[in-house]
Parts: sequence; structure tokens; C-alpha cells
Amino acid sequence: MPASSSLYEPIATDLEKVCAVFDDELFSDLPIVNELCAHLRHYRGKMLRPGLLLLSARACGKVTDEHLALAAIVELIHMATLVHDDVLDEADVRRRGPTIHRLEGNEAAVLLGDYLFSHAFHLCSSLDSQYASRILGATTNTVCEGELHQVHHRGDLNLSQEQYLEIITRKTASLIGTCCRVGAHFAGADERVAATLEQYGLSFGIAFQITDDVLDITGNEDRMGKSLGRDLQKRKLTLPLIHSLAKSPPETQRRLRKLLTTEEPDRSTVCQILGETDSVSFALATARKYVETATTALEVLPPSDARDALRRMATLVSEREQ
Amino acid sequence: MPASSSLYEPIATDLEKVCAVFDDELFSDLPIVNELCAHLRHYRGKMLRPGLLLLSARACGKVTDEHLALAAIVELIHMATLVHDDVLDEADVRRRGPTIHRLEGNEAAVLLGDYLFSHAFHLCSSLDSQYASRILGATTNTVCEGELHQVHHRGDLNLSQEQYLEIITRKTASLIGTCCRVGAHFAGADERVAATLEQYGLSFGIAFQITDDVLDITGNEDRMGKSLGRDLQKRKLTLPLIHSLAKSPPETQRRLRKLLTTEEPDRSTVCQILGETDSVSFALATARKYVETATTALEVLPPSDARDALRRMATLVSEREQ
Repeated sequence: MPASSSLYEPIATDLEKVCAVFDDELFSDLPIVNELCAHLRHYRGKMLRPGLLLLSARACGKVTDEHLALAAIVELIHMATLVHDDVLDEADVRRRGPTIHRLEGNEAAVLLGDYLFSHAFHLCSSLDSQYASRILGATTNTVCEGELHQVHHRGDLNLSQEQYLEIITRKTASLIGTCCRVGAHFAGADERVAATLEQYGLSFGIAFQITDDVLDITGNEDRMGKSLGRDLQKRKLTLPLIHSLAKSPPETQRRLRKLLTTEEPDRSTVCQILGETDSVSFALATARKYVETATTALEVLPPSDARDALRRMATLVSEREQ
Repeated sequence: MPASSSLYEPIATDLEKVCAVFDDELFSDLPIVNELCAHLRHYRGKMLRPGLLLLSARACGKVTDEHLALAAIVELIHMATLVHDDVLDEADVRRRGPTIHRLEGNEAAVLLGDYLFSHAFHLCSSLDSQYASRILGATTNTVCEGELHQVHHRGDLNLSQEQYLEIITRKTASLIGTCCRVGAHFAGADERVAATLEQYGLSFGIAFQITDDVLDITGNEDRMGKSLGRDLQKRKLTLPLIHSLAKSPPETQRRLRKLLTTEEPDRSTVCQILGETDSVSFALATARKYVETATTALEVLPPSDARDALRRMATLVSEREQ
């Protein structure tokens, strides 16, 4: 996975400061709000977005206090989307029954996500200029559109590769692209460099999401430490499935279509069909192409530890096994 | 209800412009997003918050383009909270079964609410200064805290009057107070006047929510055009109940406590018990006190049609029958 501690070496102390800014921003005078926010520790993962933002800053100049706030802001936004992804739809509730009371139920999860979004924008308003508010507001609009687009296409077995790429560009890559852009901009980079780093982030994000979607089908639950097959359950078509549906002979295609409309498609049967059309290899090769585009974009930067770390992070995306 | 068309006379054309700003801001290049936003018409009500913002502006000076944006922003925020209020919790889903698919289900409702919040902050970032972003960000933080506080106290039959007032001040009154403050501020009012108008809005909001909560128990569903008894179903204690639990003799108190823990407490039985302790009258008298505080605050303003409209709107809050 991209974010091993050695890659974050150039920004390790900055990342610690980001965590402090994050916690300070969320602190409330209401104890019950703080108790609920304590649940967020389970969501705090590899700090990928703050990491990319700070490395982009470091690769273009110095990390400033504004970067620390911005890194906390993008993590707040990302975490808000994670918390809201966990809100159960009616189907989930019915299937899983009354045992699910994560985060004290749906209502609290919706409100906690709103609290995170609100604090992200509040923290953003503490910066001197509106530059970041404008870009981050536009990016969050785009992320929501991508998610709405995806929900709309649940169960759509005719989703095209272009539509899939459009969805993941909006819902995942746009925020990562913005992280790299604002990291560069606030370190004094000119518009050309900031735009090129945004391109790095966009390509990185697309590769990251394609790989994530592949692992949701082919991954090892024990190694990844989370339950997989969620896209299959939610009838979200991803790249290997789109490729296989297009390339398989009619009989196999019928089998796959039937399998995808069952309530809990069996992952190993899906993998077997994907193997017949080499669709996992196709998806991973597509991800590698985006990684190449990302690393090429980095040539705009002068040599530095931070640039090397950005390159290695991109390369590791296509080598993810967990 | 406060917002009859004659009260909005001084700002009628401005309100039309606000609707255009609102629609422009939400427009997406994705047709499915626009289709989903079309559902929002059902939520568009009396434009109370934009109305109070524009009247506050008019009472202090001129309505500017910034006011039109701000009025659209507060409506976006309010509508986001309404859409998220409608996200079903597990209990609702189980109780009501598979017939509920408002807004294409929970998932789309969560995302649509996020889309509204995001566009509110995006529109706010288009203003020249960070003043509004800072105040609105802080206010939205407070609104979320109020909602989280309320969810935490669901089913708490020992909720005190102070805790109830704290909750409704945060979740409802804070945004209304901010509407009046920013309306005044952007019309050139000095800090003293802006702060006094915020006090008007806070008292208005508290009176409004107390009355709304009373009507949820005592109102006529046909006349109000919405289903009532929601607070009872969701086991949210409101002022008449808190008063009755404190004032009724032990036997009545036991009956009321038992009733409030049933799945769908019968509204007419609840009303009957509240009658024994005059608790509805107590709640409405409390609302009237806040209305008085609100109208007194208006003395800071010079005479104008807009000031008269603000006074009448406050008075009408305590005379609401629907």
C-alpha cells in the first residue's frame, strides 16, 4: 500500500501536527459529541490525502501552517464521505437485521458525517484567502456528483468503461488531484506546476480506485483486514466486470449476468469467470497506465526526497496486494 | 405561519432572485443529479430563513447581491438538514417495511444532503470576504452539535428544560440568529445592531421550535399537511412533556412515562394528560416570552416596513395553528 512510514519520512513531523489540528478542530464543549468523535479513530487510516498534500508542498517548497490546516481539511472531508458510506440502506438493514448498531445507528452516522463536513469548511474559512475554499468547495461538489452518479447506476449491467472512469474520477480522483494542487500552490508553485501536480493526483486517484475495486473482488479478507465483495453486494459494476461482460462469449456472459443479480454473488465464482477473459489483468494493466501518467507528470519537479516519495507512492498503487 | 406573502412584500422580488441563485448553484452537467434535485421542490417551504435574512438587510439598509447569495446559502443549509432528517434509521425501516423509497432510498438522500451542504459552502466561497464563511461554518458546526445532542437524548425521560432549550437553541435558533446577523452586517449595520438582530433571530428561533414541537403533539394533520407525532415516535422529549412529567402527580406521571415508551404513543391520550397539568399552555406561554424578547430587540432599528414585517413575523410565531 502507498503509505508506508518510510515514504512519509520527509513529512513525518508535519503529519503529527496535522493530527493535532484535526483533533483541535473537532473538539466540542458537548462531551457526547467528543465521545462520538472518538469512534473516528477506527476510520483513521493511512492519511493518504494529507500525505500527498504535504509531499506536494515539500516537493515545491516549504510546508507552512496553511498546509497543516489544509491537510486536516482534506482528511475531514474524506472521513465524512467514509462515515456516510457506512450509512445503511434499507436493503442492508433488512438483510443484516437488528444486530447492526455501529456508531449508535444511522441517524448518528449521518449527523457525524455532517459535523465533519461542516468542520472542514469552517477550518477552511480560517485561512487568509478564499482560494482553498473555492477549490475545495468545487471538489466536494464533484465528489458528491460522482457518488450520486454511482448510486444511480447500481445494478446497471450495461455500465460502460467510460462511465465507470467518469464516476471514479469524480468520486475519488478529484479530491486527490486537489490535494496535490493546493499542496503545490500554497508552497509557492506557479499555476503550471500546480496544474501538473493536480494531473499527477488525478491519475494517481484513478489508478488507486481501479486497484481498490479489483481487490474488492480478488483480495484476501484476512490480509486486508476488512470485508470484501461490497461492490458485488451493492451491485456496483467495476472495471474487471465491465471488461469481462464485453469480452466473454454469450454463454459465459449469461452466467456472469445471472451471478451479478443474486443477493450475495460468490467471489470465487466471479474470479473464475474473470479469469476466462483475463479481465483482472486488463484492469491492473489499465491502472498501471495511469500510474505511468502520474509518474511522468512528476518530471515538472526538481529532484528531491519528496518527489521520490511521490513517485514511489504512485508505483506502489499498482503493486498493492492489500 | 410567519411567512404570509404580505409580510414578504418588501422583499418579494429579491426572494425570486434568491430562488434563481439557488437553482443556478445546484445545476449539474450530470442529468441524473438534476433529476434528483428536482425532488427538492417538495422541501421548499416558506423560505423563512432567506426571508428573515433579507428583511434584516432591508431594515438596516439595502439588499445587495451578496444578500441574495447568502439567502440561497442559508436555504441550502436548511434543506440539507431536512433531507438528512428524512434518512431512515433502522427502527423506521423495520417498522414501515419495504414500501418506503422516498428519494430513491437512504443512500441517495444522504448524498443529496451532502451535495446541498457542499454547494452552500461553495457558494459562500464566491463572496469577497471570509466573514460569512466563518460565521456560517461555525453556525453549521453548532447546528450539527444540537442534532447530535438531541439524538443522544432520544428516549431520555429525564431530559431537563435547560437541556431542551440548549438543544433547540443549537439545532434551530442558531441558524436563524445567523441569518439576521449576516443580513444586517452586509447591509452596513454596525456590530451592535448586527448582534442585537442576531438576538432577535435566536429568540425567534427558540419560540418557533417550541411552537413547532407543541404542534407535533396537538396539531391537526389535515390542516398542517404533514404527518405529526414524529417526536413521540422518535422518543424526543419536548417542552410540554418535560413540564408535565415534572408537574403531574405520581400516578399520572407513571401513565405518561409508560405511554412514552410505547412504539407509537397515541397523540390524543398524550394531549389529555398534558391537559391535566396545563403543559401546552405553559409551553406556549414560554414561546410568547421569547417572542417578546425578539420584538423588544427590534427597537434598535429605525422605523421601516421591513422592521414592521420582522415584528409581525415574530408575533405570528406564537399564534401558529399550522
